[in-house]
Amino acid sequence: MTIACPFDIEKYVHVVQSFHGYMAPGVIIGGFMVNLAKRNLLEGTIFNAICETTVCLPDAIQLLTLCTMGNGRVKIIDLGRFALSLYDNEKGNGFRVFLDPNKMDEWSEIKQWFFKLKPKAEQNMDLLLAQIKETGETLCGIHPIRVRPEFLKKEKRGKIVICPCCQEAYPAKDGEVCRGCQGQSPYILTEASERNILTFS
Amino acid sequence: MTIACPFDIEKYVHVVQSFHGYMAPGVIIGGFMVNLAKRNLLEGTIFNAICETTVCLPDAIQLLTLCTMGNGRVKIIDLGRFALSLYDNEKGNGFRVFLDPNKMDEWSEIKQWFFKLKPKAEQNMDLLLAQIKETGETLCGIHPIRVRPEFLKKEKRGKIVICPCCQEAYPAKDGEVCRGCQGQSPYILTEASERNILTFS
Repeated sequence: MTIACPFDIEKYVHVVQSFHGYMAPGVIIGGFMVNLAKRNLLEGTIFNAICETTVCLPDAIQLLTLCTMGNGRVKIIDLGRFALSLYDNEKGNGFRVFLDPNKMDEWSEIKQWFFKLKPKAEQNMDLLLAQIKETGETLCGIHPIRVRPEFLKKEKRGKIVICPCCQEAYPAKDGEVCRGCQGQSPYILTEASERNILTFS
Repeated sequence: MTIACPFDIEKYVHVVQSFHGYMAPGVIIGGFMVNLAKRNLLEGTIFNAICETTVCLPDAIQLLTLCTMGNGRVKIIDLGRFALSLYDNEKGNGFRVFLDPNKMDEWSEIKQWFFKLKPKAEQNMDLLLAQIKETGETLCGIHPIRVRPEFLKKEKRGKIVICPCCQEAYPAKDGEVCRGCQGQSPYILTEASERNILTFS
C-alpha cells in the first residue's frame, strides 16, 4: 500500500478504519511493529512477511508493505503469538518483531486488552488507542531471524485442467477430480443449489 | 474498503496496483466476481467470505468488501478453484461465483492466461486486461450455496498466558509452551539470533 516512511500514524488509523472496518487496537499497534521491522531491513531489500497470528496483524502487514495474501508474499503461520517477521525473500534473513508482555505493566489499558483481562464492552477504547499511540514501538522486541529454506520456496500450481465432476479448472496435481469434489467443500450441497446455476452469458 | 457499487473498474484497477503491487489479471477479474456475488445478496446482509484459492482472489475480496484476513471475515479454503463465496455470516446462505472455463473460447488471451498455455513473458498484458474489462462478469457462473455450520463458528482463543520458554504471550489452550516453542517455528534459531535481542525501552 502507499503509506510511506516516516510512519504517519493518523493517516494509518484512517486507512485501517476503511480497510479493516474499525480502528482495531491490534491493527494499530501492528502498524508500529511492521514499521519497526521494515526500518531494520537494508534499504532496497525485497522482502516477504510471516505473520504468527491470524488476528489483526495480517492487515497491518498488508496495509504497510507490498506483501498481501493474494500475491503470496504474506504467509500466516499461526503460532498464536502476536508477532511478525519481514525477511529477504531470497536469502531468508530479516527481523522478527513481537509485543513484549514484560514491558506492559505501566500501560494498564494495553495490558488488559492484550491479555483479555476485561470484557470488550468494558474497555476504554479512547484510552487504549491513546496509550498505543503514545507507546508506539517501545513495547516491541525485535531480533534477527533466518527463515528455514522450505518456507522460501514458491509453490508451483503446475498444469491446470478441468474437473470432470464440477467442470471447473483446478491444478492437475490435486488428483483425478478437484479437492472440492474430493469432499473438502465447505458447502452443504442441496439438490436445489446443484440445479440452480444462473448464467450470465 | 471504500469502493462503492456501481463497480468502477478504473478506480478499482488503480487500487489493485497500489495494494497488490501490480495489475494482476486475477485480481482484476476477481473484482467482477466479488461484485457479482455482492449484488446478489439481500441488501443489508452482513456477510463473510470464503475464497477457494490462495491466488489473487483474497485481494479482490479484501479490497471490495469489509472482509479481511485480519478481521477474520475471509476464510481461505484452498480447493485450487478460482472461486469465492459471500454468505450471511449467521445463516450461512449466500452465493458462490466461479470462472466458467466453458465460456472462454472466444477470449483467447484470457483462456491462455487462465490455463497457463503460454509463459508469462509471452502474455500480451494489454490485450489480456482489455479482454477482462470487456467480458466483465460474463465469464462467471454463480449459484446459491449454504456454508456448513462448522465453518460459521468463530473460534475463541481463550485465556492468554506467557510462554515459559520464549516469554511471549500465547493462548493457554495450545499447551504448556507456545506452538513456536513446540517446534512449529519457521525460523532457524542460531546462537547469535537468540542472544541478539534488541530492546527499545
